[in-house]
Amino acid sequence: MILTVTLNTALDITYQVPALTPHATHRVTEVAERPGGKGLNVARVLAALGHDTVVTGFAGGPVGAVLRDLLAPLPPRDALVPIAGATRRTIAVVDHATGDTTQLNEPGPTITADEWAALLATFDRLLGEARAVALCGSLPPGVHVGAYAELVRRARAAGVPVLLDTSGEPLRRGIAARPDLVKPNADELAQLTGAREPLRAARDARRRGAGAVVASLGAEGMVAAVPGGVWQAVPPAPVRGNPTGAGDSAVAALLAGLVGEQPWPERLAHAVALATATVLAGAAGEFDRAAYEELLPRVLVRDRAAAA
Amino acid sequence: MILTVTLNTALDITYQVPALTPHATHRVTEVAERPGGKGLNVARVLAALGHDTVVTGFAGGPVGAVLRDLLAPLPPRDALVPIAGATRRTIAVVDHATGDTTQLNEPGPTITADEWAALLATFDRLLGEARAVALCGSLPPGVHVGAYAELVRRARAAGVPVLLDTSGEPLRRGIAARPDLVKPNADELAQLTGAREPLRAARDARRRGAGAVVASLGAEGMVAAVPGGVWQAVPPAPVRGNPTGAGDSAVAALLAGLVGEQPWPERLAHAVALATATVLAGAAGEFDRAAYEELLPRVLVRDRAAAA
Repeated sequence: MILTVTLNTALDITYQVPALTPHATHRVTEVAERPGGKGLNVARVLAALGHDTVVTGFAGGPVGAVLRDLLAPLPPRDALVPIAGATRRTIAVVDHATGDTTQLNEPGPTITADEWAALLATFDRLLGEARAVALCGSLPPGVHVGAYAELVRRARAAGVPVLLDTSGEPLRRGIAARPDLVKPNADELAQLTGAREPLRAARDARRRGAGAVVASLGAEGMVAAVPGGVWQAVPPAPVRGNPTGAGDSAVAALLAGLVGEQPWPERLAHAVALATATVLAGAAGEFDRAAYEELLPRVLVRDRAAAA
Repeated sequence: MILTVTLNTALDITYQVPALTPHATHRVTEVAERPGGKGLNVARVLAALGHDTVVTGFAGGPVGAVLRDLLAPLPPRDALVPIAGATRRTIAVVDHATGDTTQLNEPGPTITADEWAALLATFDRLLGEARAVALCGSLPPGVHVGAYAELVRRARAAGVPVLLDTSGEPLRRGIAARPDLVKPNADELAQLTGAREPLRAARDARRRGAGAVVASLGAEGMVAAVPGGVWQAVPPAPVRGNPTGAGDSAVAALLAGLVGEQPWPERLAHAVALATATVLAGAAGEFDRAAYEELLPRVLVRDRAAAA
C-alpha cells in the first residue's frame, strides 16, 4: 500500500454565493463538505488510479468526527490518530458567476506531546506494509518544526521511499534528512534556495539533501532534477479551471510512478497530465479521467541537462 | 418562564482575519463558535436579566450537536426538537483592523412534516408553563409560510402573550393571526405596509392585526404604536459598534416589560437602552451591563400621539 500523512487535516467546506462582497450579508445557495488536507487529496487520487492507500495524521472534535464519517465510505483506509483538539475547517467561497474562489483557512488544533508520540507509533507500524510514503502539507500548532525531518528519517530507516510536499522551514529541515523526493512549487523552491531560476533552484535543492526535486511551474508544467537527469514536462496547451488540488494530483502521479518504477520522463508526463486533468475537474482529489488519458501522450517532456 | 422559538437555529462562527480580500487565501487568526439564531440570542439576554427562559426550535446533525453542547452550560433551558437534517452554520468574517463584518449564512436543513408536528406538540406543552412567548427569525426550508400564524393562534388559545419577530410573508401572515406584539425594523415595516413613514406604517400594521407594533429605527431608536398611545424612544447619543443582536436585545427587553407589566414608555426606554448597550458589546446575545444601566435613565421617550 501507499501511505500518506496529513498532520493538518481539514474539513473542506465549499459555499456557492452569487458574488462575494466584503462587509455584506450573503445567503449561501449551496454547501458541500469533504475530507481535506493535502495527504487526503493525494490518497483519493491514488485510490482512483487503483492503488491501495492508507491515510494517517490527526483528527479530533466534532469536525474531526464529520471528516472521518465522510472518509469512511471512500477507498483510502483511515488510520488517523485521535486528538483532544478539534480538526480545522477550510471554507472556499465560490462566486457563482465567475468561479473565483475566496479561501478562509482555520489554523488547526494544537497537538500535544502524547498525540505526537501516538502518531510516530502509528507511522512506524504502517511503514511495515508501505511501498512508499508521502508527507503532505503544513504543520499544526504544537508540532515541532523538525517533525517532517523525523518522519523522513524513520521512513528511510524502514527502507520506505519518502516524498515530502511542504514549504518553509519544515521543508528546509525535512530536506536535510534526505527524502527521496520533494515537490515544491516555484515560489517554495525559490524561498528555500534563494535562486529564482527553477532548474538552478531544483539542482540546489538536491545538493541540500533531496534525492530528486520536482518543481511545479503552474501552466508551464514541471521541472525535475533527478539522479541522472534534468527534465521539463509541459502540458500540450493551457487550460482554464480551478488549480486547487493540481499539486496533490501531481504528488499522486509521482508516487504511482515511484512504486511502478517508471522512467522519469514517463513519471513527469503522468504528473503533468493528471495535474492538468485536475484543473479541468475543479475539485481537490478529483480529476477528469478522459482528459487525463487524452492529455497523457501529448505532454512534451524535454531533456534539460544541457541547459542546467 | 419565557419561551423563545427559533425554527432556523444556527451555529454562529466568527472568524478574525486581517482584512477580507475577494479571491485571495486568508489564514483565520481566531475562531469563535456560539449557539445562534434570533430566539437563542433573545433567551440569552433574558437569562442575563434574571428571567427563567426555555428555547425551542429545531436542531440536528453534527452541527446541531455542537450547538446543543454549547447551549448546555448556559442558563436558557434546551427544549429543541431533534431533526434528521443538519443545523446550519453562519460565518461572520471580521476584518481585524476595521471591525467590518462579512456574513455568510447557510440556508438551513429541510424540515419534514413529522418534525413540524413534533415542534407543535413541544410548543403546546411548553405553553402550559410560559408567561410569554417570542417567535423569532426566518423559516427553514420545508416549513409552510403560515407556520408563525399557526404558532400565534396556539399561543393565543393558551392565553400566552406572543411576540412575533420575523419579516416578509411569514410576518404578513403571522400578523393576521393577531399576535400581541410585532417588532419589525423600518424596512420590514415598510415592506409589510407600503408606507415609508414609520409612525404611519406602525399604525397600519396594528390595523392588520398586531396588538402592538414596535419598530426599530437603528440609531434613531424606536417608535411604538400600542393600545392607547404612540411613542418614540431615542438613545441619548449615537454610539459606534456592532449592531448585530441589537434587535434581539430589544425583543428581550420588550418581553421582560410585558411579563413585568411595565408601562409602555418604560418598556421602550429599556428596549432602547439594552439595544444600544448591545451595539457597544458587539456580540449577539451579549450587552454591556454598565452601559445599559447608565443609558436607561437618559433615553428620551416622547408621546407622538399628536404627530400620528
